[in-house]
Amino acid sequence: MPRARVLPLVRRRTRPAERDARRVAIVAFPDVEVLDVTGPHEVFAQAAGFLHDRAPGYAIEILTSGASPLVCSSGVKLVPDRGIHEVHGGVDTLLVGGGRGVFDAVRDRALLRWLRRAARHARRLASVCSGTFLLAEAGLLDGRRVTTHWLVCDELARRYPKITVERDPIFVHDRGVYTSAGVTAGMDLALALVEEDHGRQLALHVARQLVMFLKRPGGQSQFSAQLAVQAADRDPLRELQAWIADHLDTDLSVPTLAAEVAMSERNFARVFTR
Amino acid sequence: MPRARVLPLVRRRTRPAERDARRVAIVAFPDVEVLDVTGPHEVFAQAAGFLHDRAPGYAIEILTSGASPLVCSSGVKLVPDRGIHEVHGGVDTLLVGGGRGVFDAVRDRALLRWLRRAARHARRLASVCSGTFLLAEAGLLDGRRVTTHWLVCDELARRYPKITVERDPIFVHDRGVYTSAGVTAGMDLALALVEEDHGRQLALHVARQLVMFLKRPGGQSQFSAQLAVQAADRDPLRELQAWIADHLDTDLSVPTLAAEVAMSERNFARVFTR
Repeated sequence: MPRARVLPLVRRRTRPAERDARRVAIVAFPDVEVLDVTGPHEVFAQAAGFLHDRAPGYAIEILTSGASPLVCSSGVKLVPDRGIHEVHGGVDTLLVGGGRGVFDAVRDRALLRWLRRAARHARRLASVCSGTFLLAEAGLLDGRRVTTHWLVCDELARRYPKITVERDPIFVHDRGVYTSAGVTAGMDLALALVEEDHGRQLALHVARQLVMFLKRPGGQSQFSAQLAVQAADRDPLRELQAWIADHLDTDLSVPTLAAEVAMSERNFARVFTR
Repeated sequence: MPRARVLPLVRRRTRPAERDARRVAIVAFPDVEVLDVTGPHEVFAQAAGFLHDRAPGYAIEILTSGASPLVCSSGVKLVPDRGIHEVHGGVDTLLVGGGRGVFDAVRDRALLRWLRRAARHARRLASVCSGTFLLAEAGLLDGRRVTTHWLVCDELARRYPKITVERDPIFVHDRGVYTSAGVTAGMDLALALVEEDHGRQLALHVARQLVMFLKRPGGQSQFSAQLAVQAADRDPLRELQAWIADHLDTDLSVPTLAAEVAMSERNFARVFTR
């Protein structure tokens, strides 16, 4: 069938850039969190699409140590690109996903051995969500600062006392090792890696393409104050939170905000500080 | 292998709730945007995990009209749960993904016929990203207000003059039909559907689990002012944007903000209004 005239959402890469593409290997396992894998994969793929043939892009592959297809924790079934032992040559970016299945994956000795060997030649290591446990079990995080999903920070610190666990950030970079908070934070981490390789403008292009709200810097809190405030039961102020966040370049004085929710300044101040 | 003690990130549902679960059918096609499918899928799956056996959850399935596995636009390969003609019984929520492949999918007459028939019995219809084109081609959006990815809003309005295209919102609800902006907006839409079914607290639990920054209301702009501001080349203020957005409940006066970036108030005002 003929292709549509409309701008494709991911452009196909051409040969020259493909030849020199940086190899991104994403390691998955049964009961992996599907967005830990597909989120970063999409960020790198969009970046490669934008780069087109202007610069070396990314060749992205999903690896597994076991059966195919992989059944993710939500039930989604993914077909990995190859088994870990079919990988020839070095990997540029080695990224491991997390999710419920990681607590079985840390007992997969063949996978741990492969991770240790591949890590020696990779330019950088990364993990999303509880994928941190896999890198930790492989002994690749000793002496480093890392983060993971807020739900399992204490467990990570308890199991691996040689690691410094930072509970708050969206992602942490310590000497070539990047670890991120849970699930959607993997996309923020991938954007940061794209920015490191190709600059901020490209990272922002990708964020806009994916309609991400904000290119979150690593230092931002993973247990978002935004969500905490939204959890409170104060209806007139719920929508205002989002309005403020999206209008930071305008007047945010109390009179303006009070007018936005049709309150007197006095009542606004009373309700908002409650 | 024995299961880990750590809290699973998605809990398995038990039989009673599963029996009465609401059926969520996600329609995909070759060159679909993988996050249009896996994002909403994960939101519903997490919600079902939280509900456990306390209330009817969701039974989620990925449908295709063609070959399996589906190769998504980024190259990720998904195995659908069944073909559209293997669906027996009614669907509660019928959701279609978008992405580059949608411009071929709108020529799939069997898929369009099936969508028209399934839509008659579904409680609600939804689309993510350019999935709007598929519902539009099936004639299911005539006379309604809808949105789609900002890149293809004009094209949607041109092709389907009986539809009112809203270019700005993250998602739009018009009489049982929900359409969302691009890619990650599909997760916001799915959260809104979960909130409609089970209340705001559950939706916020899911958002926190997935470490989403903000449960974005539909009215929020899809072409985020945040990203527009970030695109500007003003380094000392980049991190401040995120800091402000995450500290809306504290003092946001000019002296505080100026102190946060170590500037005089006068210089801060000058730089910030530039």
